[in-house]
Amino acid sequence: MRSVYIAGIGQTPVGEQWSRSLRHVAHDAIIPALRDAALERADALYVGNMLSGDLVGQEHLGALVADFVGLRGIEAYKVEAACGSGAAALRTGYMAVAGGLHDVVIVAGVEKMTDTIGRETTAGLAMAADQEYEAAEGVSFVALNALLMRRYMHEYDVPHGAFGYFAVNAHHNAIGNPNAMFPTPITLESYRRATMIADPINLLDSSPICDGAAAVVLVSEDFARTLGNGRRPVRIAASAVATDSLAVHDRRDPLWLDAAYISSRKAFQQAGITRDDLDLFELHDAFTIMAALSLEANGFAERGRGVRLAEEGEITIEGRLPIATMGGLKARGHPVGATGVYQVVEATLQLQGLAGPNQVQDANIAMTQNIGGSGATILTHILVGD
Amino acid sequence: MRSVYIAGIGQTPVGEQWSRSLRHVAHDAIIPALRDAALERADALYVGNMLSGDLVGQEHLGALVADFVGLRGIEAYKVEAACGSGAAALRTGYMAVAGGLHDVVIVAGVEKMTDTIGRETTAGLAMAADQEYEAAEGVSFVALNALLMRRYMHEYDVPHGAFGYFAVNAHHNAIGNPNAMFPTPITLESYRRATMIADPINLLDSSPICDGAAAVVLVSEDFARTLGNGRRPVRIAASAVATDSLAVHDRRDPLWLDAAYISSRKAFQQAGITRDDLDLFELHDAFTIMAALSLEANGFAERGRGVRLAEEGEITIEGRLPIATMGGLKARGHPVGATGVYQVVEATLQLQGLAGPNQVQDANIAMTQNIGGSGATILTHILVGD
Repeated sequence: MRSVYIAGIGQTPVGEQWSRSLRHVAHDAIIPALRDAALERADALYVGNMLSGDLVGQEHLGALVADFVGLRGIEAYKVEAACGSGAAALRTGYMAVAGGLHDVVIVAGVEKMTDTIGRETTAGLAMAADQEYEAAEGVSFVALNALLMRRYMHEYDVPHGAFGYFAVNAHHNAIGNPNAMFPTPITLESYRRATMIADPINLLDSSPICDGAAAVVLVSEDFARTLGNGRRPVRIAASAVATDSLAVHDRRDPLWLDAAYISSRKAFQQAGITRDDLDLFELHDAFTIMAALSLEANGFAERGRGVRLAEEGEITIEGRLPIATMGGLKARGHPVGATGVYQVVEATLQLQGLAGPNQVQDANIAMTQNIGGSGATILTHILVGD
Repeated sequence: MRSVYIAGIGQTPVGEQWSRSLRHVAHDAIIPALRDAALERADALYVGNMLSGDLVGQEHLGALVADFVGLRGIEAYKVEAACGSGAAALRTGYMAVAGGLHDVVIVAGVEKMTDTIGRETTAGLAMAADQEYEAAEGVSFVALNALLMRRYMHEYDVPHGAFGYFAVNAHHNAIGNPNAMFPTPITLESYRRATMIADPINLLDSSPICDGAAAVVLVSEDFARTLGNGRRPVRIAASAVATDSLAVHDRRDPLWLDAAYISSRKAFQQAGITRDDLDLFELHDAFTIMAALSLEANGFAERGRGVRLAEEGEITIEGRLPIATMGGLKARGHPVGATGVYQVVEATLQLQGLAGPNQVQDANIAMTQNIGGSGATILTHILVGD
């Protein structure tokens, strides 16, 4: 297999993009990514998206977006793994370049969730869960996470307030990210006072519904040498995917993200590193409970101690394991099918020393982890600055 | 790149499967495919599907189906390219094995279209077209094809009846296919008398709305040597994808399937063959007009002469270029996201000499072509019996 490099990155601001349709939003990330790579063409485009059929009435995004960005004719299709769709598209692009099928591939994640025509975004998101055994019983996606959070609090005797550090950190980091939806500081006090959504999950435990797109251009090692864009080369040192049951009740232990454990173990092995080598970790903090579970399943904390990492300041940009360095899903925003690509764009900025006020000092190795559903598909990538 | 072999195939009958939910239908193709390969595990599963979100209320099919067939944990996600989703999943599986990322991959296409809960399958299918410039104007997918057919009849002075040979051939071949939805003979007379749907497309110009799933197990060459299932090895000698604009009015020539031309040219080159070497061609006869356009863009007939191939009997099982040998989309049925995999399953049966009464004599090289939308994504695969 060949080494795969990130040659260019692009992203749109995350938020309500009512003046831009789905194809425009995708365009607004892809064109900057091509420009960043100093390229005008690609062999293929893989689009990560979850909800375009349900919320926009448009499937077939591969050909649509390829044509709209001026690349009519190239190989293109859509990849879907619920909220993990972005990283699933990245995985596809990685396979195409690593396997020698293509030299230049665009991976774009795009989602429009906020200007729906009479259909419910909440119902759409529930399609990430098991339709027959969870959604059909009326469990929304936030409710599923609320059940997990309640169970966590019960099992480990953790008070709700302990999760607030995740939200405070995410909002703090978003301030330095010009593309973040909520570049607004919050305090533990405002976290505690936030409106309840699905007890015990409150507004500040939750990532927002929003629009956005992010894109990366992947190239082979040989091709990377010919690039003249002056950027530090960032290599995808590992790409791994694992799955679990969609339904939480089918898992042996609802508080253990087995697919995170499996995919990160694979990724560390592929990259030839240990978790201690990581300089930052862009995790999938769709809800604060997911941040805690993720830190634990990936081995950064003992079970029930993920929240302590946050409490002790280890997760800040200056901490031992910076997470959500550009605001995370919580404060940058979570346009579901785009999130996995946003994570990689942000990690690339860190490794290139372009993260501005949010720069992690001497960042050389980053991990991104994108989660579909409440842990059913987990995709882990490790990036290394060469 | 490594050679990729088809180690096993499976399919469900095509029709109304009201007693089986989406996951069951997928299961009913995957388990036989694994059994056919004499394997019990796989490294990854790629699911081709277009409409599960819109019609079943379920996305996230990768993890769902992997778990349901007893493979919880493996890499899995969904791939979508409208009616070309099945072949797009095949393309993904091909890349994974050819590129050396996996040794054993399952590719499954699945669609449930007939037991929808208050939502319109017709509206769902229109998501293959351009939502903003075609569907929003009220053009259904069959209406788009009717516009193409009318234009073809006008430009080339072809009477409607000339298309009937495609339908007669497809229904004739379906009789020998135990999984076909319409194993019923029709005549040119019944074709002419068929109910009009969207003038000039009548009922017998059209493939049916239906449920079904098909699956193939792909393995590397080294792995293929270890198989003990006694089947003739079938190699995927070429895999190519090309795209065009979603909207028909954006194309330079609405009667020319440029993506078929590009992807088949690439595929012939990759396989090192010419079109004259093909023993059969499983084409995408979603409507009779698509069969004609496909024969022309792929170089089997001059422009405006595709219908003549059918009229002259060249497309029958005994003809120069057998098409739709197991009934095609028209009479086997067209469960949209599954169709591309059905085509490959049927071509494999032909190359293995297992096509029963429909066997093409001495079949060694087959081409399959799966079309998303009215020609916007076209995926071509060439299979060779080794």
